[in-house]
Amino acid sequence: MKLADIAGRFRIDKPDKFRLSDHDSKETCGLDIGKSNAKDMLADGLKRLEAVQEKLYAQDQWSVLIVLQAMDAAGKDGVIKHVMTAINPQGCEVHPFKQPSDEELSHNFLWRAGRRLPGRGRVGIFNRSYYEDVLVVRVHPEYLASAQIPENLLGANIWKQRFESIRNFERNLARNGTCVLKFFLNISRDEQRKRLLDRLNDPTKHWKFSAGDLAERKLWPKYMEAYEDAIRSTSTDDAPWYVVPGDHKWFSRLVVAAAVVDALERLKLEYPDAGDAARERINEARKALEAEK
Amino acid sequence: MKLADIAGRFRIDKPDKFRLSDHDSKETCGLDIGKSNAKDMLADGLKRLEAVQEKLYAQDQWSVLIVLQAMDAAGKDGVIKHVMTAINPQGCEVHPFKQPSDEELSHNFLWRAGRRLPGRGRVGIFNRSYYEDVLVVRVHPEYLASAQIPENLLGANIWKQRFESIRNFERNLARNGTCVLKFFLNISRDEQRKRLLDRLNDPTKHWKFSAGDLAERKLWPKYMEAYEDAIRSTSTDDAPWYVVPGDHKWFSRLVVAAAVVDALERLKLEYPDAGDAARERINEARKALEAEK
Repeated sequence: MKLADIAGRFRIDKPDKFRLSDHDSKETCGLDIGKSNAKDMLADGLKRLEAVQEKLYAQDQWSVLIVLQAMDAAGKDGVIKHVMTAINPQGCEVHPFKQPSDEELSHNFLWRAGRRLPGRGRVGIFNRSYYEDVLVVRVHPEYLASAQIPENLLGANIWKQRFESIRNFERNLARNGTCVLKFFLNISRDEQRKRLLDRLNDPTKHWKFSAGDLAERKLWPKYMEAYEDAIRSTSTDDAPWYVVPGDHKWFSRLVVAAAVVDALERLKLEYPDAGDAARERINEARKALEAEK
Repeated sequence: MKLADIAGRFRIDKPDKFRLSDHDSKETCGLDIGKSNAKDMLADGLKRLEAVQEKLYAQDQWSVLIVLQAMDAAGKDGVIKHVMTAINPQGCEVHPFKQPSDEELSHNFLWRAGRRLPGRGRVGIFNRSYYEDVLVVRVHPEYLASAQIPENLLGANIWKQRFESIRNFERNLARNGTCVLKFFLNISRDEQRKRLLDRLNDPTKHWKFSAGDLAERKLWPKYMEAYEDAIRSTSTDDAPWYVVPGDHKWFSRLVVAAAVVDALERLKLEYPDAGDAARERINEARKALEAEK
């Protein structure tokens, strides 16, 4: 099995056929992290990621936006730590999107994301994103009120409108050279229970716990409906969603690495060619330095 | 030899006695990267860095500002890549300071740095910094003109004034919980020549070459004077300089890792204690989750 196969396997290429219930959160494609097949693939993925990011940075034309969405304890932080450390921190920036500030709420829901987009040559990682505005806000419609949107704009089709706004936002990014990749780390409700319990039993993890986590957990079915609709409505060629089996942490990291490597390798990045004029200057510089001794 | 010894060895604790000529760019403290002593120390340093950064992030009180300054090809990018990948990218941000934009020039020289300071719990790395305004600008005083500073403020004591402004800026950071660590990667002029030639002979490195590099190299003695004066004038308990031997890349990485680990471990960071009220909520949450099955 190749990295590109794994990437393709979990990319939502036919969004209108997408059903979350068709996706097994325990899937590992027959791989086993205890055996060399999975370990070698992950090591290979990280190595190729490092190589292709160096070209991205050198070429300074494309940028990459990685959106990570998931329920609590699904492994977003672990993916960032274990996959993205393969990337030179100089070319990478991570933005967590938390509860919006007053300033952020006083703008449209895409505004704060727009300010955090990665520049050319860079990889930007959104830990949560503007998708929260069609997920948590949809599950808690009272949050819409705090955004001070004129009431006559809050119609029944607001989620459809937001999906359209998101598709248009992402299409514009793609047209201007940003490769947008979106990941839903799909854990089962029972796996979340185990992980939350592990956190509660480890005092060094208590800082990650918020009393709100359990309240959101009770709304699990509503969240799953919101995720399904969001993914169906916004998985496009410009900005595909990957639904990543999340119950095995090592496998979700492998899938994310595979998807990023696959997408970046398909850009066929090359180190920039200096051009004739620059080559001339480089030759002159070489002569000057050699002549110093 | 311990990491703390290495850190202390290259920290400028007596700035008034500091002379750059006392510092050997080839120093390795008798260590040899071919032997396990140096390899083990570096691995140990990176492991401890990872552990202490996790606490920094969890505690969310202190922040760390790492300033990297050096001549071209001294290894700043390598330090960022090899040392800082030990740090979770989620808690780390790297800002390169290039030629200032028109907007940046229209403000005081500390303004653009102030906007990029790391928040609590985070590590910020400045690849070059506000020190450029007492280094490159001092070597090229014509750059001062483009900053549109009223002429009667451009007195002979401008560098002394800027050093004072920098000390005050850094003292305020220290007083508000930012640990400021500054590194000068000290390579010899001959080592720079070798590395620039290596770059020119490797087409995949041509994008790093700028014709200006050789022009600046010719001003080497002026730069060294400017560095010496800046380090003498701004190495403080609040924000010490480390003069890092730069001719051996592995050793400069070891020194930077050692200095960051040493400074962070001396903060005695601990995972935050949740407090009695939170412990109560955690116990309730545990019971609720356990009761689900």
